[in-house]
Order: sequence, then structure tokens, then C-alpha cells
Amino acid sequence: MHQTFDAVLEMNLLHANQAGADANRDRLDRWGITCLNIMSSPGSGKTQLLEETLRSLQAELRMAVIEGDMTTQLDAERLRKGGTPVIAINTGRACHLDSKMVAGGLHQFEHEQQPEAFDLMFVENVGNLVCPAEFEVGEHAKVALLSITEGEDKPLKYPLMFREADCLLITKTDLAPYLEVDIDKIVANVRQINSRAAIISVSAKTGEGLEDWYTWIRQTVTACANRSIAQMV
Amino acid sequence: MHQTFDAVLEMNLLHANQAGADANRDRLDRWGITCLNIMSSPGSGKTQLLEETLRSLQAELRMAVIEGDMTTQLDAERLRKGGTPVIAINTGRACHLDSKMVAGGLHQFEHEQQPEAFDLMFVENVGNLVCPAEFEVGEHAKVALLSITEGEDKPLKYPLMFREADCLLITKTDLAPYLEVDIDKIVANVRQINSRAAIISVSAKTGEGLEDWYTWIRQTVTACANRSIAQMV
Repeated sequence: MHQTFDAVLEMNLLHANQAGADANRDRLDRWGITCLNIMSSPGSGKTQLLEETLRSLQAELRMAVIEGDMTTQLDAERLRKGGTPVIAINTGRACHLDSKMVAGGLHQFEHEQQPEAFDLMFVENVGNLVCPAEFEVGEHAKVALLSITEGEDKPLKYPLMFREADCLLITKTDLAPYLEVDIDKIVANVRQINSRAAIISVSAKTGEGLEDWYTWIRQTVTACANRSIAQMV
Repeated sequence: MHQTFDAVLEMNLLHANQAGADANRDRLDRWGITCLNIMSSPGSGKTQLLEETLRSLQAELRMAVIEGDMTTQLDAERLRKGGTPVIAINTGRACHLDSKMVAGGLHQFEHEQQPEAFDLMFVENVGNLVCPAEFEVGEHAKVALLSITEGEDKPLKYPLMFREADCLLITKTDLAPYLEVDIDKIVANVRQINSRAAIISVSAKTGEGLEDWYTWIRQTVTACANRSIAQMV
């Protein structure tokens, strides 16, 4: 968030974004789709994790992706290769997705697909450990990634992202032998500010921890579906 | 930058920031200090590079640091251990340093030190590959870091940072044997959008490339000093 904002202006901006996010979530609930907002620094492995996840879960869940990037369709093209529908949003100079952009993505998704046939939508946010945490897009849960190459201190230095996360994936654990990094220390630093998030160590390269991540996804999809049914009754 | 800005508001914000940056640069010029704005994603190795640089150049250059972090004094404390004066700025929720924050840092620096005795000031920005590139702080040159763990595509996906950089440091090259990354491809991707930047591959761990980085610093300090003298004549 740009501190030079006037406080009232900032409140209005976040308020308008929140209203848009609530509308997006209502729409996703009507379709019966669970939405996960995937956030991290650039290069923490969001796209590779999604490639693996789409491949592994495609037999049991119908999935789609909204892919946010400042420029290029590079990530969208990577994810489309597996056959998953991917809506690409280029944010231009914007450093995060906001609810208005995702509303546009949902509109396109509705036009191109039969939304009721889908179970799960991933929103891959712009690579940025700061701003995306402030702008809800209509997700049911927030997933943050932190690569072990980024260092143990990041949860303390960028607390909002790690406080907001429902699930934290500690990624690239295959590189641990080559780094002076203590994964227990990362976990302890996250626990200082967030006692409830699921924390899962993964390597998309070796497959370590991916089954735990898939279990978390299944539980989250089931919980969302149950809540939607309860609301309808 | 938050796209939901009104265009006029955004222009005013950047205009005000630029005026503040120009004032900061005038002040630094009067003191005879060259200022480098160090920017990258979180965890690309800015602080470790500065630790090495301060240690290696302290016999020949008088240096200071303005250290920008959202929260904590962790990096400032690391850098102070070598004896360098470090002004810590906590940006709170702000995702980058702006010229007003750095003006406050320069004010404190002037109060605590004799600025005319210094040659070089590093501004370590908030870890963010997007927003810091838009907000000049009064620097004479911009230095961007990209860790090889972040992937080859980042210059294309986050073009503003790589277009603005005067020097690009490709960091953590000691990890190359454990990654499927082609450093030549990173360089080629940078060259698509920036033909003038110095590009130096470094490892703060093994020392690879650091001498080239120090040479670039010396040349930049000399160029700034010569320009200041020419302006005074």
C-alpha cells in the first residue's frame, strides 16, 4: 500500500475493493466453486506448484485458473498446456490483483465455460509479498508461498501476508542441503504472528509434501461445499 | 502502483515524489555523496551483499546506509555490526520507500553524522520487485538484484524494475549447480528491455563477481564526483 495515500482515500479504496470481493465470492458460491488466492514473492514457485497440482488433481476436481501478471502470458501458457481453462489478466503497472480485475475474469470465465461444472478456482496473484495481502479478490482462503531461498526472517519482515494466510507453503525444500536455512525457524517465525494457518513444506521438484497440500485442498473444498449447502437450507 | 488510482491523483503523487527526490539529490550532491538505490524481491540477497560490500570497501570509501523495512530492525542491526552508520526507516504498511521517507532519513543522518565526510550512501529498499521502481528517492543510480532461484522469466514479467536499473546483479550464483537455470537467458531477457545496464553475476557466499561489483561502484562514485565538480565550476 502506498503510504502517501490520504487516510480517507485509502479507506474508500479498500472499502470499494472489499465490496467487489464479497460480490465475487457470492458469485463463486452460487456456482459451487471454492476459490484459493495464491500469493508470494516473484519466483517462489507459484506457477510450478499449480502445474503439479492441476496435473495431480484433475481426475477428481474440475479446476480453473485466473492468472495475474503485470505483463506477458508466460505463466498462463504454461498452465494451459495441461488442458485447464486459464483466464489471463495483465495488470499493467498494478502490483496486485484487485476485486474489480477478478470480477472481469469471472465474467470471461462465465462466458467461455459452464461455471457450475467446476469445483475449484486458483487465482495466481502478481508476485509481490506486500500488496496482494491487502486486496481481497473474493477468495475463500489465502495461500502464501515462501521459498526457503528467501530466508528465515521474511515472516517477521512482511507480517501482513503471513498473518492473513490460511495455508503457508514453504517451497523448494529440495534446495535445503545447499542453503544455511532452518525450516523450523521459519515455522516458529510464522507462529509468532499466525497460530491458525496450516503450514506445509513442499518441493514441486521431488514431490515432498505435495500429498499434504492436496489433502488441505480437498478439506477446504469440502468445507466450502458444506457451508454453501447449509446456507441454502 | 495501485491501478484503482484515479489517473490525475496518480500523476500528482508521482510528481510530488519526484520533486522530493530531486531535493534529496541536491542535498546529497552538496555533501559530495553518491547514492545507490538497492532494489529486489524479498530474499534476493540485498542485505548480505551490503554486508560484504561495506566490509570490503570500508578502507577506501566512507559509507552509510538508509535501511527500509516494513517492520523490524533486523537488517539494520545486521549492517550496524560492521560499524557503518545505518538509518532505519520502518515503512509500516507501505510497500516501498518514497522520497519523503528518505528526506526524513537524510535529516537524521545530518543530525547524527558529518555528511561531508561521507562518499557513498546505500538505500536498501523494501523487498518488492514492483513498486520501488516507480518511486525515485534521490539516488544517482538504481541497482536491481535478481536471484537465480527466482527464474529466468522475471525480467519479462516485471519489466519496469529491469528497465530502470543502471546495474543488475544476478545473485546467488553458487546455487547454479542445483537449479535448472540458464544465466545467459536471464541476461538475454534483460537485454530485451535494457541495453545500457551493467550486468554482473555475483555470489556473496563464494565472492564470485564481487570485484566487478566494487569496480562498478568505484566508477559510479568517481563519475558523480566529477559531475559535481563540473557543476560547481
